[in-house]
Amino acid sequence: MIELGIIGLGKWAGVLARAAASSDKLRITRGFSRSAGTRASFASDFGIDCPDRVEDLLADPALQGIILTVPNELHLEYALRCAEAGKHVYIEKPITQRLDEALSLRTACEAAGVRVFVGHCAKLLAGVQAIRQHIDAGELGDLCLLEGHFFNPRALSLTREDWRWYQDKAPGGPLSQIAIHQLDVQRFLGGPVASVGATSARRSPARPEVEDQWLLSLVFESGALGSIGSSWTAAGVFDIRVVGTRATMHYRIDQTLWPTAGRLHESATLTLQRQGQAFHQAERLPVAAGDMFQDELERFAEAIGGRPQPDFDADYGIEILGMVEAARHSDRHQGARVDLREFVRQGLAKGAPIDRNIGSHT
Amino acid sequence: MIELGIIGLGKWAGVLARAAASSDKLRITRGFSRSAGTRASFASDFGIDCPDRVEDLLADPALQGIILTVPNELHLEYALRCAEAGKHVYIEKPITQRLDEALSLRTACEAAGVRVFVGHCAKLLAGVQAIRQHIDAGELGDLCLLEGHFFNPRALSLTREDWRWYQDKAPGGPLSQIAIHQLDVQRFLGGPVASVGATSARRSPARPEVEDQWLLSLVFESGALGSIGSSWTAAGVFDIRVVGTRATMHYRIDQTLWPTAGRLHESATLTLQRQGQAFHQAERLPVAAGDMFQDELERFAEAIGGRPQPDFDADYGIEILGMVEAARHSDRHQGARVDLREFVRQGLAKGAPIDRNIGSHT
Repeated sequence: MIELGIIGLGKWAGVLARAAASSDKLRITRGFSRSAGTRASFASDFGIDCPDRVEDLLADPALQGIILTVPNELHLEYALRCAEAGKHVYIEKPITQRLDEALSLRTACEAAGVRVFVGHCAKLLAGVQAIRQHIDAGELGDLCLLEGHFFNPRALSLTREDWRWYQDKAPGGPLSQIAIHQLDVQRFLGGPVASVGATSARRSPARPEVEDQWLLSLVFESGALGSIGSSWTAAGVFDIRVVGTRATMHYRIDQTLWPTAGRLHESATLTLQRQGQAFHQAERLPVAAGDMFQDELERFAEAIGGRPQPDFDADYGIEILGMVEAARHSDRHQGARVDLREFVRQGLAKGAPIDRNIGSHT
Repeated sequence: MIELGIIGLGKWAGVLARAAASSDKLRITRGFSRSAGTRASFASDFGIDCPDRVEDLLADPALQGIILTVPNELHLEYALRCAEAGKHVYIEKPITQRLDEALSLRTACEAAGVRVFVGHCAKLLAGVQAIRQHIDAGELGDLCLLEGHFFNPRALSLTREDWRWYQDKAPGGPLSQIAIHQLDVQRFLGGPVASVGATSARRSPARPEVEDQWLLSLVFESGALGSIGSSWTAAGVFDIRVVGTRATMHYRIDQTLWPTAGRLHESATLTLQRQGQAFHQAERLPVAAGDMFQDELERFAEAIGGRPQPDFDADYGIEILGMVEAARHSDRHQGARVDLREFVRQGLAKGAPIDRNIGSHT
């Protein structure tokens, strides 16, 4: 049983704490928030000890890893503190705000001998795994087109009190917050991405700083195309469609249940539409029960135990963040496609020397 | 009862002849194909007189209009012949192959006092009309994102014997052949388009000259975004999703029934998903029976009768063709967004003087 700490005790910490509670591979035993009230209520809700000082959590020899559910802009700072303390670190997506920060983080964690695990959970959805199995079995033929959507109404209720309002805290709004899950899914199903194009818009009457609509076009190294739509002003949608020369698969979940992933299979639909079939005649496949959040935490525990998790490591997090940043770059340049490999290389190179970042915490 | 002739007696002529047969506003009384065998079988199948010479059809004083179902590259030539003969002309989409040709056609028809009607039928689908009514009633709120797909497996079976194999005959493959219907639908639902971006790919093992996958990104003048995916290697899909700040509507038909439009309502689905609702809890709306092909032919008859049809006239056809051409231009330029108004203006200006085109047929 792997013991973990958790830093950042907002809504998402509760989601992960519930997912962890029913695992027999790990448990969360200590938590920290800068707010005393939040510490008290988290300790009460989950029976988890929440010390007053983060140093006490980081110094606890029983903890083998730390889960970070702090706002994006704090990912680097807290991950570096975990590395200094010799703790393996789980970071919610995106790995950091900028590519140069991600390089700093990766370098520091390598030097400290701790593993980085980035919470790119969406690929663990039961339907996504099922599509992957059908692709691998050749049932779809050659892949031609992948299409995914992630919509929710977040921008309609945003206020200046929410960090997601601000471009420097949640770059691109739904792009870095929810569309990023579709980037994970498409990378998992379609393989490496060669280029990214993007177009954004602002439609929310709340008028946050961030864009609230994104359309992304991916060209995979295989030659297939990917399309991602993301809206922060919409009724909830999460779906993925994969078009192959032999068949098309389509998976849809009830997006409003996203935080209670263990219930998603109850209303999810997964279909296999072969050439010549109409959609309503497509084969309806069963969707396995599952909980992507528990699965990802258990994979973090496996990583701590020494089993590599290449779909969740720092390099993977950097690749996905590279797509997010490339999309923003494309949008600023009339939507022209951005060569991903070259863009990531340049983005990583912009960083300050790692010693300087580490130094700020000593 | 309006009497019409039809030129080009391939598969699509049969679709329109069946749609016309049950109309009480028009009838098709004469047909022409360059192939004697095709003329004979069409005459036999539909009881329609098919003279040996196109001149006989064009000179028939009983005919008030001509339906052109010839390959795209012949649209201009035959439309000009109709204009010379003083016949109103129905042209299958796209209006012509190039914008300069469309300008020639429009000018010639205006000079001859005949109306041009372009067969942009998809907006007449019952579900598209229903979405438009819900938009107009304010039930969706402000529009944010429109998404449409049109897939079929055409490229899997293309051969060099088919004009659709060739880039100069079916430019962009599915782009000018089926995605164009989604451009019509999105223009109808979302209003004028400000810019177009596009990315294409070739995935068909048959390897036709044309691209077989397209992703389009539209920015509407309203500020909303539009996304269109089109594949020529896929099981049949035609759907449209419209995201507004109050609700999302989704309409799906059985694409394999496209040529038998009168049956589409039997298996079509139309849903209204309000904010807070999951998709499977969305309101399921009835889909009215209808036949978009009969509807468009009757609108052509109304145009002949003097009632303007601005959603089907030459200017409309030029606007939609402009989007097709802008998408190809964007794809050749790394997918960067193309300003539609400026692009169309330049495309129209490239044309040869109209007299020269007219002259080639006298």
